[in-house]
Amino acid sequence: MAASLEAALAYASAHFEDSLAELTALVEIPSVSSDKEDRRPMHDAAEWLASRLRGASLPRVEVFPTVANPIVFAERTAPGARPPVVLIYGHYDVHSPEPRQAWATEPFRAVARGDRLYARGASDMKGQIVACLLAVEAVLAAGPYPVTLKFLLEGNEEFGPSPIGDFIRDHKELLQCDFCFSADAGMIGERSPTIVYGLRGRSNCVIRVSGPADDVHDGVFGGVILNPIHVLSKMIAGFHDADGRVAIPGFYDKVREIREDERAELARLPKNDAYYLKNSGAPALWGERGYPAVERAATRPSLNILQVRAGGPSSAIPSSAEADVTARLVPDQDPTEFHEQLTRYVEANTPEAVTSEVRLVGGYRPTLTDRSSPAVVALSRALEETWGTRPLFDRIGAGIPVVGKLQDLLGVDSVLTGFSLPEDNIHGPNESVHLPTLRRGVDALVRFLFNLAEQTTGPST
Amino acid sequence: MAASLEAALAYASAHFEDSLAELTALVEIPSVSSDKEDRRPMHDAAEWLASRLRGASLPRVEVFPTVANPIVFAERTAPGARPPVVLIYGHYDVHSPEPRQAWATEPFRAVARGDRLYARGASDMKGQIVACLLAVEAVLAAGPYPVTLKFLLEGNEEFGPSPIGDFIRDHKELLQCDFCFSADAGMIGERSPTIVYGLRGRSNCVIRVSGPADDVHDGVFGGVILNPIHVLSKMIAGFHDADGRVAIPGFYDKVREIREDERAELARLPKNDAYYLKNSGAPALWGERGYPAVERAATRPSLNILQVRAGGPSSAIPSSAEADVTARLVPDQDPTEFHEQLTRYVEANTPEAVTSEVRLVGGYRPTLTDRSSPAVVALSRALEETWGTRPLFDRIGAGIPVVGKLQDLLGVDSVLTGFSLPEDNIHGPNESVHLPTLRRGVDALVRFLFNLAEQTTGPST
Repeated sequence: MAASLEAALAYASAHFEDSLAELTALVEIPSVSSDKEDRRPMHDAAEWLASRLRGASLPRVEVFPTVANPIVFAERTAPGARPPVVLIYGHYDVHSPEPRQAWATEPFRAVARGDRLYARGASDMKGQIVACLLAVEAVLAAGPYPVTLKFLLEGNEEFGPSPIGDFIRDHKELLQCDFCFSADAGMIGERSPTIVYGLRGRSNCVIRVSGPADDVHDGVFGGVILNPIHVLSKMIAGFHDADGRVAIPGFYDKVREIREDERAELARLPKNDAYYLKNSGAPALWGERGYPAVERAATRPSLNILQVRAGGPSSAIPSSAEADVTARLVPDQDPTEFHEQLTRYVEANTPEAVTSEVRLVGGYRPTLTDRSSPAVVALSRALEETWGTRPLFDRIGAGIPVVGKLQDLLGVDSVLTGFSLPEDNIHGPNESVHLPTLRRGVDALVRFLFNLAEQTTGPST
Repeated sequence: MAASLEAALAYASAHFEDSLAELTALVEIPSVSSDKEDRRPMHDAAEWLASRLRGASLPRVEVFPTVANPIVFAERTAPGARPPVVLIYGHYDVHSPEPRQAWATEPFRAVARGDRLYARGASDMKGQIVACLLAVEAVLAAGPYPVTLKFLLEGNEEFGPSPIGDFIRDHKELLQCDFCFSADAGMIGERSPTIVYGLRGRSNCVIRVSGPADDVHDGVFGGVILNPIHVLSKMIAGFHDADGRVAIPGFYDKVREIREDERAELARLPKNDAYYLKNSGAPALWGERGYPAVERAATRPSLNILQVRAGGPSSAIPSSAEADVTARLVPDQDPTEFHEQLTRYVEANTPEAVTSEVRLVGGYRPTLTDRSSPAVVALSRALEETWGTRPLFDRIGAGIPVVGKLQDLLGVDSVLTGFSLPEDNIHGPNESVHLPTLRRGVDALVRFLFNLAEQTTGPST
């Protein structure tokens, strides 16, 4: 082992201020992916990253144009090309800063106040990218490093549709790796380093119920024509039984029950009922009887209508009504199978006075990374060495499309962590990053990369 | 009786061509009430009517400004001021001509082709107003006429909100009358003169179900938070029982069953199941078991959701969901009582994880004019004398707000007929009026006015 951990940590320490100057430059590029008018900042951000990756001694750096924003790829093949190969994922686009009047500072000017740096993207996730770049640079500066590193940085994470799935499909060899690492997941609290090892999948469907050929006057036809809204409502009303369980036949057939050790791990998370009540502001919680909220939200599937499009301001019974349905899926459910179950359910609940259809409009499978895999162990040790506390193992209810795509297309698991905090207000006004936590994050990343090096297998060159 | 029916009919005949020239001038004023940009045509149309009414020997003509478009009032008090007093209602605004590209001619140019005159408003209802004016002028030209006539012509019938309710409330004495006559209702067919004697009322409510304080991420909260859309859907799903009857407690308590003679009258109407199927394009009819479609659509109340506003394109469980509810009411239901029934129903179906409210946003009572009243008899005779066939007596499911307001505020019944035909395409492109029918309508109106004169009571001067 030629590189020295101490040298790498010293390098990171000596260059952290330079890193903040870089972060300042990067957040001042307003790379808002939902702004379809002006694509120039997206290209500027991609080029900035490419240039920075070259500066970090990555020999191969390429900016790939896509139908949307460019994807930046970089690679540094280790001597001997031995496993593991790590793919470091990130996104350089940021959430819209609107409403701007809610900001105390300019969203695209970096403003340091106390322990924090304020700017859109400072935490999500330009700060995290800069931390990764510094850690990699520090490790490579400290001596020969035996692990192959790849970077995959996209510009359509916050606002889609993202070309990342097509890109992975078209560049399987380029992206080949043993696991994907992402710092986009954040920490549960300043003293609680967190590893996210599971994400729910998703099946997005649209139910459409059609009745009269055109909208018809409710005064003339009310009582004679079946209203598609009423039929759709009845379908939705039957989604759940009195125990909060999804009542669509077959829905739970492939749901894997969790083991007791995982249940104990989830119980360590600070996500009790009060947490969900406070964060939702709902009058009371709800859900499947027999499971605590933290399990319902991540290890159990859910079914929700996210939008109903039905009717208008005129006095008409509408000719059709639509609902956007989202099922959040857990292993071993499948987006296509859910679509088939929903289609059968809708057909069975369609009276003769209307017609119906169910379209599958998107989705991805649930993912679960083995908590005892080498990558998770390497990260867990690094976080514990840095914070002095065993990390929390979080399984979250939301999905990250790229994680599902990498699993589906390359069979690759992802390991997620990050150094953003709940207080960073990542999609809201006055986003900021907590600098001491980001600083600690760089050290944790350096240790993670060293732990991976210890796992290197195969003949040394 | 000084005036001669024959003289009046001869006058109408001699002046029908002049009337069409007037109609041409009137339809060429683009008085589209939904066009809020340019109010000038509305004022032009009101002034045109005022001038025309003065020319028809009505001594008092006044244009009242309102918060919206002007209301034209005219009055000709008969010598001796004996009953009946007739209020002739009309509207000079027209429906938007959009989409204009669907028109074969310019919507605001009168084009005569064969038996028809094409222009927006030619049938609905500038043609009807011109027919009324000619009939009144003919009757007054034929000699002393003992019936007091009033005109009430508004400019916000097609597009609201209409100031007509406030105007009636503020001018009760001015508008005092024995009944209101309107030619805005049309005929069922060219050989089927029609009298509309009943209209359903309406109660418009909004149900709002609220859950989380703000929209919450479905990935994070799916399975933990009750979705307001699901609760709202369940409420709507419970609106009707398996027999198509409204299941809201108390809904039918005040519904008057119709008598056998009225049932027979309605059975004469050409409104069988095929009629409703053809006109809706629905795969099948639906409704309250035990009543034919023609009765369900007019003599039975109905309950419909006209719009659902819930959720959006983001991956969120919405903080609230709203539905616009419309109950079509029949005697002796009441809009306020329906709101109370709905409120109790919604409260009973609100679980603890959400809150709900029901707002009453508008409505009017159902109206029913006695088919044996002197005004209906006078009109029925006039139509039969003109067409040689007993008119159809129609009770329709839609409401006409002015009719409800006159009933509520002045206790006055309305008698509705008209000489537009289903083929006139009144709110669509290429609206036209069938000139032979309009011509016949003028004669019927002359006879109607003479029949009313025969009913004059009290001492003659």
